Formats: sequence, C-alpha cells, structure tokens
Amino acid sequence: MRVSAGRDQPSRAVTLRDVARLAEVSTATASKALNGRPDVNPGTRARVLAAAERLSFSPNAMARGLSAGRSGTVGLLTSDLEGRFSLPILMGAEDAFGADRTSLFLCDARGDAIREQHHLRALLSRQVDGLIVVGARPDSRRSLGPNLPVPVVYAYSPSQDAADLSIVCDNVAGGRLAVDHLLACGRTRIAHITGDPGYGASHDRARGARDRLAEAGLELVGDGVWFGSWTESWGRRATRLLLEQTRELDAVFAGSDQIARGVLDVLQEEGLRVPEDVQVIGFDNWEVIAGESRPALSTVDMQLEALGRRAAQSLTAAIAGNPGAGTVELGCRVVQRDSTTPRGNDRDLPPRPG
Amino acid sequence: MRVSAGRDQPSRAVTLRDVARLAEVSTATASKALNGRPDVNPGTRARVLAAAERLSFSPNAMARGLSAGRSGTVGLLTSDLEGRFSLPILMGAEDAFGADRTSLFLCDARGDAIREQHHLRALLSRQVDGLIVVGARPDSRRSLGPNLPVPVVYAYSPSQDAADLSIVCDNVAGGRLAVDHLLACGRTRIAHITGDPGYGASHDRARGARDRLAEAGLELVGDGVWFGSWTESWGRRATRLLLEQTRELDAVFAGSDQIARGVLDVLQEEGLRVPEDVQVIGFDNWEVIAGESRPALSTVDMQLEALGRRAAQSLTAAIAGNPGAGTVELGCRVVQRDSTTPRGNDRDLPPRPG
Repeated sequence: MRVSAGRDQPSRAVTLRDVARLAEVSTATASKALNGRPDVNPGTRARVLAAAERLSFSPNAMARGLSAGRSGTVGLLTSDLEGRFSLPILMGAEDAFGADRTSLFLCDARGDAIREQHHLRALLSRQVDGLIVVGARPDSRRSLGPNLPVPVVYAYSPSQDAADLSIVCDNVAGGRLAVDHLLACGRTRIAHITGDPGYGASHDRARGARDRLAEAGLELVGDGVWFGSWTESWGRRATRLLLEQTRELDAVFAGSDQIARGVLDVLQEEGLRVPEDVQVIGFDNWEVIAGESRPALSTVDMQLEALGRRAAQSLTAAIAGNPGAGTVELGCRVVQRDSTTPRGNDRDLPPRPG
Repeated sequence: MRVSAGRDQPSRAVTLRDVARLAEVSTATASKALNGRPDVNPGTRARVLAAAERLSFSPNAMARGLSAGRSGTVGLLTSDLEGRFSLPILMGAEDAFGADRTSLFLCDARGDAIREQHHLRALLSRQVDGLIVVGARPDSRRSLGPNLPVPVVYAYSPSQDAADLSIVCDNVAGGRLAVDHLLACGRTRIAHITGDPGYGASHDRARGARDRLAEAGLELVGDGVWFGSWTESWGRRATRLLLEQTRELDAVFAGSDQIARGVLDVLQEEGLRVPEDVQVIGFDNWEVIAGESRPALSTVDMQLEALGRRAAQSLTAAIAGNPGAGTVELGCRVVQRDSTTPRGNDRDLPPRPG
C-alpha cells in the first residue's frame, strides 16, 4: 500500500501518522509502541506492529515521519572530552535544540583521526540530521570534507576550509577586553603571563592585550609576554621570575584561570596585596578555580554555552536548507569578582581610541 | 532473493557479505558505499546500492550483519556531565569495547527524568545494543525498569532494583584505605573533614575511616566528622574551626581533593608544616587540584576508568546473553604525592586486625 498525498505532490513514504491511523491509536502511542516502551498496552502494541508491517513501515521512515524529514538526532563529535570546553558547548547546543525535541549524541574522538572517522560513520549510519564538530583547542582543524550527506557546523576550533561554517571564540577580542578592564581599574603597568605558545589562543589573547595597550600609549611591563604552560605551577614560577625582574607593576593579565591562581598565590607570598597593590584578571571563568581563589578571581568568560547555542541554531538553519560558510567569531565578557576593582568613573582613564 | 545458509541452519537474513558478493566488491567497500562515505568510486557505489536494493538489504540488517546481531553501538546515558565522574567512566568503557569496533553515544540527561526518557527513546530507536547508565553521585537511583529491549548496566550510581546489574565504587573501603595510609605514615590523631551530608558517599567514607581507626583502638579527633560542602572554602573554614577546638592533630583525611586543598592552605597559614606536623590525604585524585596543590596532594583514587571498563565488559557479556544482577563494588587505591610520608617500615604501626 502506498499512501498518496495531495494531487500536486509526488507520492510519499509511509509515515508514523499512517501507521497510527490504521492502528486507530494516537501517533504518540504508535511511536511508543514502535520504540519498545513498556508503558503501552500489549494489545495496542500488537495492533501497531501489525499496522506497521502491513504498511512496510520501517523505523527510519518513522524517524523521517516524526519531524518532516528529520530524525530529531544530532551528532556532536568532540576531540576534547577531557578538557572543559566541550561540555558547556554541548549544554548550550542542547538548550537551543530543545531537549524535548532533539537528542544530541556525543562521540569522543580523543584527537584521533581514525577514531573520528569511525564515530562519524556510526553517527551517519544512525541517520543523524547534522553534526557539530568541537575541537580540543581554538586552533583550526582539517575539514571533514564537502561530501558528507548531512550539514556540519564546526565549533570552538574553526575548519581550515572556508566553505565550512565555523563558530569560534574571538580570543583577540578577549585579550583586549582583559586589558580594557584593567585600564578601567586605573592600572597602567600591566604584565601578561600566559600558557603554551603552541596554542593560537595564547598568541591571539596576547595580541589583543598589546593592541589595547598600544591604543592607550602603553606597553606590557616585564619585557613582553611570558609564555609557558596552562598550569598553576607555571603561574607561580613566572610570577617569581617577573618579580625578580621588576616590582614596578600594578596588574597581571593571566592567560587562564589556573595560571591566575598561581599568580595570586605568589604575589601575596611576596607581600603584594591583591587587589590593592596588584590587580589580577584570568581567562576561562572556570568556577571551581576562579570562584575559590583568594581573593575570588575576576576573569574573561568565553561564553561557550552561547557558542553552543549559536552552533545549534546555525545547524538547524543548515538542515532546513540554509547553510552558512566562513568563520563567525563570538565575543567574550568580563566576570568581575574581587581581584580587580573598577573605578566608579573613568576620568583618569588612559585615552580610548576613536 | 533469500540466501540459504548451511543445511542444518534455518534460512537467515541478508548480510552485508551477500551484498558485497553480488556487487563483486569487498565487504569493507560495500560498507563504505552504504554508509555514504566519500572515498568510494561512484560506479562502485551505484553497483553496491543496486545490489542492496535487489536483496532488500536495509541499514539495520547491515548493522546486524556486520557483527553477528550487533549494531556496534552502545548508549551511555549520564546525568553528570558537569561533574568529573562520567568522563573517566566513558573513557574506560570505550577502551574496553574497542574504539575501532564500537561507538559509544553519550546522552546527557542533566538529572532530569523527562530528558532521560527522551534520550532513552532516541537511543533505543537507533538500535543501540545496550546501555550504560552513569549517575551523578554514588547514591542509588531508580531503575529504568525490566522491560527494555536491550541490556543495561548501571555505573557509579547503583540501581535500586537488585535484579539490575550495578558497578560502583566501594566508598567504605575508600575511607578505610585513607586512614590505613595515614596509620602507615605513623599518624594516630586524625581528623576528618568532608562534604555534603546529603551524599551517601560522605557517610560511607566516614564509616570506613572510623572502622579502620576503631580496629587500631583509635577515634577521630576534633569531635567526630566535619560535614559541610565539597568546596575548598569549606575545607578552609572547617580547618580554622577545627584548629580553634584542638591543635592536637597530626593528620587530616579530607573527603575530596577540593576540600583537602583548603585544608592544606589553612594548616600552613596557621604555622603547621605539611607533611612534617600534619599530613593530609584527599579523595578523587583530580589531577588539576591534587597535582597543583602545595605540597602536591596524596589522595584516594576511585579508579573510575577501571569502573568504566568493568561496566563495558559486563554489558558485552549481557549482550551475548549472560546478564548479571546485583551490585558489584570495586576498590580504590592510594596515589601518594608529597602531603603524606609513609614510613619505610611498619614496626611502630598501630595493630591491624586479623
């Protein structure tokens, strides 16, 4: 039996609605029965299964029927489950899709291309409607290619192929924002201690910081950027080395909250009060570090949940036939806690551009 | 066309091998072509698709054919993606399944029963072979029920239904182990500062600690267990209160690494040297906290990756027709860093039982 749609449309596949109609149940009940859920009367279930068989209705057809060509499932392929960046992106994406309408299946590739290919095939064979690919770090990554059967949005790590759509954090703007905040706190002798120089993000944040300082006619103190690793112990070591070189500083911009925490500890061990003598701002807004520091740490938040929401919205548009391309950079915000103290007014601020 | 197997076997479903044979390609190529992968010659793909159509071969049948009745996909339903406990369990499970043979799809229910049901339906409609359900905390959780079409293993949080199989961490043994280690360091005046009393784990760890002390003829110092929250700031506050009450202590067992870190900081601020005057052991082995403490923190490791591996092995057995039941408790181990110093010998140790 083929079900014929309106006269101007081609004949269409059997839908869940057809099965439900034939079985004389609601589509919700038909769905439950076909999904093997326990809360369906056995007689009803048998009727639904018989109707599905009579109509040659398959689960894939069902998934298509449920939501006008959509299975209601999206794959999230991450290479950073151990890091802290995938999870807020996942949360934001789930919120945007609506957890009652879409299921997000997360697969962890651990930065391994073979594993990624394996997961990709598994997700595609399960007829996901689209994919969000989350990188381990904000550096660009190779594209999955143009020939996939479903739309893809890259999040956090941009694709190297400009024909792909990538949603990323603007780390240059994040660095600017950190220095902007310290300037608004009346600070002008600012040092910058950051993480691994192998990460594009550390260079981007440093560039933003330097650009904003230059606009105020200032330079970093401490002889440039202190690159090292993304750890507290580097924050401690770098601060000791910095203080040996100069004590003429009134603020530190740290490239991560973990680094900032090491900075805070050593500044105070060396008799410098935070925020009175030296103010400190971190990067990440990682609550368990920033909220538990002494004093609690002001920091730059990459707003990864918003990034996840945006990725989900873009993927939804692409699934509906409106794909995007290029790299979209989203902004950061400052979360102020107790390690910085902005002035009530900005009469004494260094000049801002424009 | 039906393919007939050996004479003693009933006729069987069409497999990928049948499709590959008819299309005159390898099963790997047939699989690629049917999965929509780009690295297949278009002519080859057309031949494979024609063969699949002629044999009425469906993707579900393919999945079954690939691995003797298995789709090679397992669902991991977690309610703790924000916590740190699901991820190592996921990693361990993936390792045990073999990432080249099984894809783990992780769905995040965020502790919400409706969301959990939605994800459960989505996973079941994608024909997963089985489910691992990871709880947010080590307290028991309600069962998904006996009527699911695939086997389920509960990990970290045990199911309330004894007919289910649960793999959990033995927190009583973990508490014993912490005290055992401090006794082996020659310590006898041990205080215990722990987290939220609403968690079964905090009571279990405290019970294990007390039991081990009692076996040595000892009690907790500081007037019993200090319950609070799982935070550094509680560790700091509790330590101050404890030191106001007594300075007659030579060790602290902290119920988490975050608490332990607060304990370390305040002990040293109060002029007590760690480990010379007071030794400290934490719980969790959370590297970014324990490894970066000063001194680096000795701690109890719940071995969550091993727990994940065991859950995967049990699920594999259940899928193969050998389900288990009841709650399996796995042991912990001590990771020694610099906040404790075991003696070279145990001549002076308090008596151990039996």
